[in-house]
Amino acid sequence: GVIHHIEGSLNGPLGNYASDGKMKGLAVLRSHGGRWQAIQDGEVHIDIAIIAAPTADPFGNCTGDRGPSACGLLGFGLADSLYADHVVVVTDNLVDFPCVPWQIQGNNVDHVVVLDKVGEPEKIVSGTTQITKSPDRLFIAELTAKFVKAAGIMQDGFSFQAGAGGTALAFAIYLRELMKEAGVKARFIRGGSTKYLVEMLEEGLTDFILDGQTFDLEGVRSMRENSGHINTSPFTSYNWHGKGNFASILDAVVLGATEVDINFNANVVTHSDGQMLHGIGGWQNCLFSKCTILPIPSFRNRIPIIVDEVTTLVGPGELIDVIITERGIAINPKREDLIKATKKSGLPIRKIEEIKEEV
Amino acid sequence: GVIHHIEGSLNGPLGNYASDGKMKGLAVLRSHGGRWQAIQDGEVHIDIAIIAAPTADPFGNCTGDRGPSACGLLGFGLADSLYADHVVVVTDNLVDFPCVPWQIQGNNVDHVVVLDKVGEPEKIVSGTTQITKSPDRLFIAELTAKFVKAAGIMQDGFSFQAGAGGTALAFAIYLRELMKEAGVKARFIRGGSTKYLVEMLEEGLTDFILDGQTFDLEGVRSMRENSGHINTSPFTSYNWHGKGNFASILDAVVLGATEVDINFNANVVTHSDGQMLHGIGGWQNCLFSKCTILPIPSFRNRIPIIVDEVTTLVGPGELIDVIITERGIAINPKREDLIKATKKSGLPIRKIEEIKEEV
Repeated sequence: GVIHHIEGSLNGPLGNYASDGKMKGLAVLRSHGGRWQAIQDGEVHIDIAIIAAPTADPFGNCTGDRGPSACGLLGFGLADSLYADHVVVVTDNLVDFPCVPWQIQGNNVDHVVVLDKVGEPEKIVSGTTQITKSPDRLFIAELTAKFVKAAGIMQDGFSFQAGAGGTALAFAIYLRELMKEAGVKARFIRGGSTKYLVEMLEEGLTDFILDGQTFDLEGVRSMRENSGHINTSPFTSYNWHGKGNFASILDAVVLGATEVDINFNANVVTHSDGQMLHGIGGWQNCLFSKCTILPIPSFRNRIPIIVDEVTTLVGPGELIDVIITERGIAINPKREDLIKATKKSGLPIRKIEEIKEEV
Repeated sequence: GVIHHIEGSLNGPLGNYASDGKMKGLAVLRSHGGRWQAIQDGEVHIDIAIIAAPTADPFGNCTGDRGPSACGLLGFGLADSLYADHVVVVTDNLVDFPCVPWQIQGNNVDHVVVLDKVGEPEKIVSGTTQITKSPDRLFIAELTAKFVKAAGIMQDGFSFQAGAGGTALAFAIYLRELMKEAGVKARFIRGGSTKYLVEMLEEGLTDFILDGQTFDLEGVRSMRENSGHINTSPFTSYNWHGKGNFASILDAVVLGATEVDINFNANVVTHSDGQMLHGIGGWQNCLFSKCTILPIPSFRNRIPIIVDEVTTLVGPGELIDVIITERGIAINPKREDLIKATKKSGLPIRKIEEIKEEV
């Protein structure tokens, strides 16, 4: 093979392969924002970028929100279009100039190639975008929503980010009910958009979805039709080498983790045996939110998830505010404000050491 | 004074001042696209950019299409936002994050300053956006529209650009009637948008307006309300140091000129006495269109406009295709295709030397 190494997310079989030391060069894990930064800073130079575009014009303007292979947005290809030496757009839906909207601008594109088919849009609904059916995880999601309310975060004009994991989706659904009950409206939700967030937008529970990755076809439709469903990019959302980014102004972010430890450090990349089996996505990029919450089960396949020290330190404890398990809610001792706000909430607030001792 | 010299358009009193040699440093005239290129290439370094924004959020996202001082688009400030060391957005209409659309992205902005008032939108309707009342110029505009039709340019899916000068506006109005009669629809019109172009968009005579500068309040309204009224920038339209620009794919462009000569060279910057009295705008940036037309009167204030040699060579003759005066239409001899296409049109096609001899 001619591939020396891979920089990006390494998960599944590829993660196994790299974990076992079989990759010739050094694998570099990069988050969504980290990838943008590396390209922008010149740390990674891209000779040729191939961008699959569901709709494009002959000039190279292209969009992901329409066409037979519509996938939502092309934000992850934006840096490539800006910085690669050669940019090739591949489409199966060529329209007359101008392709509007132009999520990627033809002024950055060298060539447009037309193929019969560039993708299967129904496949963008991956296994991670199903709501969990596990009673434990549904309970954790419910606890998380109740915590967000009890902590005073769920106020008119607030914002939150929930990824496409099953628990995160369930959290959004529980929170939606609490918002309806209280008559509270969000200013914006950052997603991974799904039909659940789209429903919230269409019900008037939020002014905007700031979409970083469209996870189902309802998300694609909404982006195309609803002027409140906005496409974003790692530049707008996650770029820490710029003049600001949206992730830092979120009121609450809900993320997954493979392990956490008693100092609130978290791991999202490896299992306890050190195998890299999960992508990073925008995980670390989200940690500067005003309240970062990890709702996780205390056991997975009989392996305890709260440990003395994480196998791989991905998120430092000072940036993790709350860990929520089916055995209770642990608030980072640094967040005295959250501890105080939820003291009389009736929620099972516990010390993380206590929860760990039980598992 | 502390200003050493000015780079940009120098017209009116400032043009007089510089023409008289009173500016300490060397004035540099830059077109819209030339300015973008100079900034992008590092030829001009901007320490501080102040961008007046009719609507902005505290993050710095801003737009010109709404708010009490709405002016349309902010395309001319886009390069500044991308390349200046310090970017300050000044607004009189601060909205909650996110300000959507974000014509300029807050990720490129350092500070947001709120003032009571940033502009008087009714003043954007300048003297140049009134249709000419001169019978001669109306006749020239009509001849221009008839030429565009006779040459076979006015076909379904075609495109044209007409600036905000009185003759150019009249041309658009005559062309609109010819398009209606023939049942022809444009794919896009590049403007300087005005109420006349907006009417064409709303009547379905074009799919899109690609707007580079909004010249009246109907243009502002249309940009805000109509998804076919698109804001552009010198990057998308005029940047010749990039991978392409929209100006190069127009089927016809109609521009003004202060002088032309028998070799089709044109001048738009100075009068015959060498005084710089007119801005350049995007004038040269448009010359690579498929058919560049200069509709001009043969006399202005008793001074002949067709000369042996222009005082200042701004546009080389090889890029000027047609000159249209009230005394007839001169086609550049290089454009044998246009000469052939219009031969039997009944239009007053004449040699430029013949027209010159009359004036």
